[in-house]
Amino acid sequence: MFDFKYYTPTKVVFGRNTELQVANLIREFGGKKVLIHYGGGSVVRTGLLKRVTDTLDAAGISYVTLGGAVPNPHLGLVYEGIELCKKEGVDFLLAVGGGSAIDSAKAIGYGVTNEGDVWDFYDYKRKATACLPLGVILTIAATGSEMSDSSVITKEEGLVKRGYSSDYCRPKFAIMNPELTMTLPDYQTACGCTDIMMHTMERYFTNGGNMELTDALAEGLLRTVKENAEILVKDPKNYDARAEVMWAGSLAHNGLTGCGNDGGDWMTHKLEHELGGLYDVAHGAGLAAIWGSWARYVMNDCLPRFKRYAIQVMGVKDEGTDEEIALKGIEATEAFYRRINMPTNLRELGVNATEEDLVLMAHKCAVGVNGGMGSAKFLREEDMLAIYRAAK
Amino acid sequence: MFDFKYYTPTKVVFGRNTELQVANLIREFGGKKVLIHYGGGSVVRTGLLKRVTDTLDAAGISYVTLGGAVPNPHLGLVYEGIELCKKEGVDFLLAVGGGSAIDSAKAIGYGVTNEGDVWDFYDYKRKATACLPLGVILTIAATGSEMSDSSVITKEEGLVKRGYSSDYCRPKFAIMNPELTMTLPDYQTACGCTDIMMHTMERYFTNGGNMELTDALAEGLLRTVKENAEILVKDPKNYDARAEVMWAGSLAHNGLTGCGNDGGDWMTHKLEHELGGLYDVAHGAGLAAIWGSWARYVMNDCLPRFKRYAIQVMGVKDEGTDEEIALKGIEATEAFYRRINMPTNLRELGVNATEEDLVLMAHKCAVGVNGGMGSAKFLREEDMLAIYRAAK
Repeated sequence: MFDFKYYTPTKVVFGRNTELQVANLIREFGGKKVLIHYGGGSVVRTGLLKRVTDTLDAAGISYVTLGGAVPNPHLGLVYEGIELCKKEGVDFLLAVGGGSAIDSAKAIGYGVTNEGDVWDFYDYKRKATACLPLGVILTIAATGSEMSDSSVITKEEGLVKRGYSSDYCRPKFAIMNPELTMTLPDYQTACGCTDIMMHTMERYFTNGGNMELTDALAEGLLRTVKENAEILVKDPKNYDARAEVMWAGSLAHNGLTGCGNDGGDWMTHKLEHELGGLYDVAHGAGLAAIWGSWARYVMNDCLPRFKRYAIQVMGVKDEGTDEEIALKGIEATEAFYRRINMPTNLRELGVNATEEDLVLMAHKCAVGVNGGMGSAKFLREEDMLAIYRAAK
Repeated sequence: MFDFKYYTPTKVVFGRNTELQVANLIREFGGKKVLIHYGGGSVVRTGLLKRVTDTLDAAGISYVTLGGAVPNPHLGLVYEGIELCKKEGVDFLLAVGGGSAIDSAKAIGYGVTNEGDVWDFYDYKRKATACLPLGVILTIAATGSEMSDSSVITKEEGLVKRGYSSDYCRPKFAIMNPELTMTLPDYQTACGCTDIMMHTMERYFTNGGNMELTDALAEGLLRTVKENAEILVKDPKNYDARAEVMWAGSLAHNGLTGCGNDGGDWMTHKLEHELGGLYDVAHGAGLAAIWGSWARYVMNDCLPRFKRYAIQVMGVKDEGTDEEIALKGIEATEAFYRRINMPTNLRELGVNATEEDLVLMAHKCAVGVNGGMGSAKFLREEDMLAIYRAAK
């Protein structure tokens, strides 16, 4: 068991119509001039943005708006947001949307409060020392960014996708109304469920410092998301299932499922980041397309964990060799992905990658992790390429 | 499923030697003049207090000390602490100890920052609007007060024991070094494990708003504490087991295991509070002595939960009627209490209660909850008396 820190100061307000509490929450955390940052038009179409601005108008809180945050949010819009905040004297950020809007807002928050180019943080050149206070109205259960310390931004030039983490960007509050996720396309819902499970699985498949309590919580969370993801395929308006998945999304990435371990593996995320940078695929689907190939490649270096996962999460019987049980767990996971219409390889993801693409991604991935990374198994460039090839 | 708020801003620093980080943490949260509040002599005997004051001396942080917080901490010492803080200009409280020192410090914090008599809050007369910032070095895994919003104080006059909850008193940081709990007497360790499990069980046995994810986390936590409590009976210096129990203690009472439900039952705690007020027994042991009688009394009004608990937590086979399964779960819990040397009735607790005592406690308990309370089953004074009698 490793020492750990656990810090999740985000005030969560969970339930129906909770978005109407946004003005009080902004005031509670000292916001006087707000940038409302959102993504595509769905926030406008569903009337959510108007409900939010009406609430702020009624409370006399002034604001400016900036839409356009796309999946794999772009650095260009971050720069635009920073300029807007400085020009307008914004002292509080409100992200309305999913991980894209939240991550983009976090980057804007770093840019406003730190001198120099905000990309430096994502390029591992230096560390942020502050971030504008940030609140969230969540509309997609997926990235967990609403409670997490991390954000991922894509630089358009060279399509470089990088993450940066610090406690400064943890949201002050997160408003979570499961009803707001009901208008999501089924594919995005399934992507979200995959992402949520992967945030826990990245922390679970490790060779260092496992803690029984953390494992028990992680396994309970994984079983819950798996069951409710399948319910949502057939019944997307099921409030309880939406709520289970939404709350699981926050707990999967706020640190809870990693306490006591070595920090986790995270190589599936790193491999997917290159996919996302090059093809602009949905993050959750990209993770599903890569995971099986990663799991088979590393399984024998982390066999006790794969066996335990198979039994405790996937319900595999404790019969046969450890390897057989572990493999059945991987197969059961892929069967689950197919049941929720997620891909299990690049072809099913809709990516027709050439060998040159695979080589390029493996190289960029290796550079991005300074040569190698991974706890289930330490992977170098040649390993990454082998996994990409197996996933083709 | 009910709407909920979840707010756990406490920064947890968990692991060996983490108490040496105390000066940095106090500074991070703006403390300049500290009251170090502790309980009995063990904090002095083990050298912990000296390590703490040496660390503050080295960092140039000034402090005053106040020991003497007893289990079921007394209002008199709280008044003394408030006077001391005002006289010395204290702006930060550091509780070094278990729930007694922390709860006592929380009450001092309320008293310093609010006008009038601090007992008013515990007597439900009015609400606090602030609390001094508070940090914790935890030495007993039990009450969860290190992350919770609650504190319990006993007024000496009439031995009235009351709790008060507000987010203001949630500690800014909690330093948790499992090694600090190794010098505890075995009885106190077992009391702590019982208290931790009860904090989750109070939230689990309800008739309203259960959430699958919350249940899964609660069951995982209960299994983990149960297993590690038994390990600690035989091997009290087991670091990992101490760590599992310590972290479970915080998660059991920071709100996590109640998300989505109706707030929980809490009648075992209320019944025990009267025991604690009248006989000054250890809180965890008091809970164990009452729980079985409470459970048998309310079981049929909350049968699905008792059945699920029996199967998921106590490992009872899913065979027979729901009532039989539920009863086996209660019996398995009592058998577990006996294995960790906890009482299962008042006699084993060392309390030889007269009928008049039982009547008095039932009356005080009913008054304390404005006539009646409970989610598993709503209990009135006559129900409380019946449970006390069954527990005799």
